Parts: sequence; C-alpha cells; structure tokens
Amino acid sequence: MPVVTVHTPATVANIVCGFDVLGFALNEPYDKLVMRLLPEKTVRIINKDNYNLPIEPEKNVIGGALLAMLRELDDNIGFEIESTKNIKPGSGIGSSAASAAGAIVGANALLNNRFGKEDLVRLAMYGEQIASGARHADNIAPCIYGGVTLIRSNDPLDIIPLNFPPLYVTVIHPQIEVKTSEARQILKKQVPLKDAITQWANVGGLVAGFMKGDYDLIGRSMQDVLIEPIRSMLIPGFNDLKKVSMEAGALGGGISGSGPSVFMLSKDEATARKVEGAMRRVYEKIDVDFHIHVTTVNSQGATIQASN
Amino acid sequence: MPVVTVHTPATVANIVCGFDVLGFALNEPYDKLVMRLLPEKTVRIINKDNYNLPIEPEKNVIGGALLAMLRELDDNIGFEIESTKNIKPGSGIGSSAASAAGAIVGANALLNNRFGKEDLVRLAMYGEQIASGARHADNIAPCIYGGVTLIRSNDPLDIIPLNFPPLYVTVIHPQIEVKTSEARQILKKQVPLKDAITQWANVGGLVAGFMKGDYDLIGRSMQDVLIEPIRSMLIPGFNDLKKVSMEAGALGGGISGSGPSVFMLSKDEATARKVEGAMRRVYEKIDVDFHIHVTTVNSQGATIQASN
Repeated sequence: MPVVTVHTPATVANIVCGFDVLGFALNEPYDKLVMRLLPEKTVRIINKDNYNLPIEPEKNVIGGALLAMLRELDDNIGFEIESTKNIKPGSGIGSSAASAAGAIVGANALLNNRFGKEDLVRLAMYGEQIASGARHADNIAPCIYGGVTLIRSNDPLDIIPLNFPPLYVTVIHPQIEVKTSEARQILKKQVPLKDAITQWANVGGLVAGFMKGDYDLIGRSMQDVLIEPIRSMLIPGFNDLKKVSMEAGALGGGISGSGPSVFMLSKDEATARKVEGAMRRVYEKIDVDFHIHVTTVNSQGATIQASN
Repeated sequence: MPVVTVHTPATVANIVCGFDVLGFALNEPYDKLVMRLLPEKTVRIINKDNYNLPIEPEKNVIGGALLAMLRELDDNIGFEIESTKNIKPGSGIGSSAASAAGAIVGANALLNNRFGKEDLVRLAMYGEQIASGARHADNIAPCIYGGVTLIRSNDPLDIIPLNFPPLYVTVIHPQIEVKTSEARQILKKQVPLKDAITQWANVGGLVAGFMKGDYDLIGRSMQDVLIEPIRSMLIPGFNDLKKVSMEAGALGGGISGSGPSVFMLSKDEATARKVEGAMRRVYEKIDVDFHIHVTTVNSQGATIQASN
C-alpha cells in the first residue's frame, strides 16, 4: 500500500502591509503527516501529538480538505493520516493551513499528482474553513507554493508566486490566545482613503522589493497604517519587540497573520540571532511565556519526503 | 551661451488600481523646451504655442519649478525657456508635469547635472503645485525616470522604477474639461476595508505583472473598485470605450490621471490600432470631439536632444 510522508511548513500571512493578500512559508517549524491510500471513501485521522484535535473528519482541518477532494473524485478511495503537529494551533503561523495544505499535497502525491497547484490551494481552503469559518488562502497559498505569494484574487483564485532574496526570519510566539475571529472583528469596516493609498503604495513597494531582491525596499515597505495599529494592542509588548528588533538590525516585521506571533525579517543569520536575543529580553522582562524560532523563508512549500 | 532642447513626455498616472502611486511615460505626445542659462537670478518664459499660459514665473508651472531650483542655488544665474506645448493642458496625461519636469531636467543639464533624479522630482513638484494646488509626484516621477514608476512614499520621497515589457498605449482625449480638483472632490473620503484589500491585491498584481513581463497578469490586475466607479461618470461613454477596447484585444486600461483621457494597454501595435478604431467609433457615434494617440511606453523620460 503506497505511503507518503509530508513535511508541511508554518507560514506568515499578511507580511505587515499586505493584509489578506501576501504570505510566505517558513523552514521551521513544520508538521509531519504520514498518509496511506485506503480502499474505501473515508478519511481516518490519527493524532500523534498532544493537541487533542478532533478526529471526526468533518470537524478536522485535514478531514475538511480531504473530504472536499474526495467529493471531486469518482474513485472509491480514501486516506489514512497520521498527523504530528509541531506548529501549535492558534499561534498565528498557519497551523491549520499546514494541516490542510499538507494533507492535500500528500493525497495528491498518492494520486500521482492528479491536481494542479491552484486546485490544491482551492481544496485545502475547505480545511481552513473548518478552522476559521472562512475559506481564505493567505496561509494556504505559501504553504503549497513555498516562498512568497500574492493572492491577487480569491474568486476566481489567482495566486502569484514572487521572486525573493534569501531572508532570515525570527518569529516569537507569546503563549497567549488571540482568536482569528476576534482579531478580525476589532478591525474598522471603513478606512480613510488616504490611509488605504499609503497601504497600497507599501504593498507595491514590498512586491517590488521582493522581486528586485532589494532588502532596503523590503524593509521600508513593511509599514501598516491600517491593521497593525489596532491588532497590536492584543499582543503584549508589541511596540517594544518591534523597536528592539529594528535596533538589532531587522529589516522590519510585524504581526504574523492575526497574531499573537510576531515575525521579523533579516538579511543574514547573525542579525536574525541578534533579533532573537533582543526579543527574548523584552519578554523575559515583562514575564510573558514564549517560544521563539530563527529560520529562513522556505522556497518549496509542503514536500513529500519519501514514498514507497 | 549654452542651450539645451528638452523633449518632455506625456504621462499616465494611476494605471487604474494604482491611484496616486503608479504611473508611466508615453513616447507621444511630448512638449519641447529650448532653454538657455541667463547671467542673473531670473526665469524668463516664452510661449511658442497658442495655449496662452501665464508667463509670470510664479504663476507658471515651469516658473514654479525653476524658482524652487534657484532658491537652492547660490549662483547668480537664471533660465530662459521657450516652451512649445503639444500636450494639451487639462487632458489628463500630465501636461503640467511635462512642463515642470522638462524644465527641471533642462536646467539640470545646463548646470552639468548637479542634481540627482530624486531631487529633480522633488523640485518639479513645486511646478505641479502651481497647476493643481498639491505637490504630487504621480506624473512627475515617470516623466523624469521614464518607464513605469511606483511612488512608495511622498514624504520622504521614495520612487521605485519598475521593469516592464514592451507595451503599446492607445489614449483617447475627449475634448471636454475635467478639473483635477473636482475629480478629487467627488471621491469618498472613507472606503470599505474589503474594497481597499481588493485594490491593494491588484496593485501588488500589477507591480508583479510589470516586473515579470506577464501581460495577462498586467491585464487581470488593472481593476479599480474604488476610484473608477465614481470618476468614470465624468467621462462620456467610458463604459463603452472600455468594453470595445477589451473586445478589440486590449490588456486593460482606464482613466488616465483624473481624466478626461482614457488609455488602454496592448501587447502589440496591431492590437493598439484596433483599439484605436474601436474607441473612435464609440465617440463618433455619441458625437464627442476627441484626439487619439497610439504610442508606446517611453523608457527614457524627459531627455536632452542637443546641447552646444
């Protein structure tokens, strides 16, 4: 019976100014899925971690995605998935997207790559819907394409992979809960046109910065006048984290997804490590528990490790 | 006495979704300026056309820009400018920007290129202020840099030149007046966040499309959900112009600057000519006077033709 092992990465959605449209994949942390084809139309989920996620397919992110795929297949097949999550649910670095996208990538490998990448994103979005109630692609797209992605349109889906230079990422995850739904609710529904213009100027600058490999432009463009000023209130010590990171040489950064994780981009590993130290000192001072990762932008997305 | 001749091009600001931040230069039409150094701190403007623009420097776009430059110079020098405008004032293709930018580029050549490009934009913006009351760079930047430019920030000024593939442009100029100030006034000061997100997704797509040389992406991204629906009401037959242009094979397009000119981008000259014919028939039917240009994106900006 064919078996595949998938490594499916954490992702950072929004990238400061690019709310709902930009995202990138990380090399660490990643979840591991071991997947087998089953000879009946079913999805069997086995949790190999301690997060106690529901195993009923229709309540589980992996299940939601795979059931959507099975609905599009005439074959009488199904999937068994052993899931080992290393990306903590609710951390704001795309834990649910990693599950959904990884499961779909693994299933596609078991089906000899019957689906194209855009279809994989579309199907994985059904999993994301279970986690957040909305079918959005801002974590799913970079998780499947790898690298930096722009979602130009959700309907019809239009995903643009962007070139980018080598980038180091420091991500700090305060051990507090920020609900995506709540983080969305506190946003203003109407925004000043002049601020929206500032925002799309920065989105344009950030896209150009990635594609040119212009680190300074990437840094200058990571400014968010609309979302960060509101959402950052939910994250302890946010302004200090940002300040000390910039002083340590970070290009810039901000809230990962809807938080509570905060990421910073750096040109090289030494700087990313200095940023790590500076962030660590902020949180030790205000006594917030945290995890911290120093990693790089992942250019592969979810990958098949071995198949037999 | 040194003399320079400057060709200074028309420009298209906004490029549909990129309101206030994107723009490109055209190869046709362009204004011609013949400039000489004077041995006293003065600006002498001689109009060689029939537009009857004011010749008092402080009321003239050329004068406003050059007086700003002279304020930054210790030298006891001035400029004489013979201006031949081919870009009709009020057409929405950067007539005032061409005057201001051309004068500054010519003056800089007479001063052996003492100023850098970003300074030239900054100084020319003083001329734009005389025309519209606001110091904005969305026409000035492409007029000086050439090609496609992104203004990431006005203060501090941050201009990003973007790579772009060969592009043909059809521009139709209905002979009606749309005041920039009025076209700005009718815009809503507050906009829905969800529309702003759609807009910056398209700005990101358009920047990526130019830089990748991806014609389809350029076309798909030229969508404006915020400005065009309002401003297009000021332009006779706008929806028909757009419809027939797309049917003729245009990639897309929209209002040039604040109008009334309407531009369409095409991949090749044959298509741009078909678009011209289609636009012409719309305006002949509704009996609106117009001028029409078929040209290409200019990659040089304002240029010195000869100096002696």
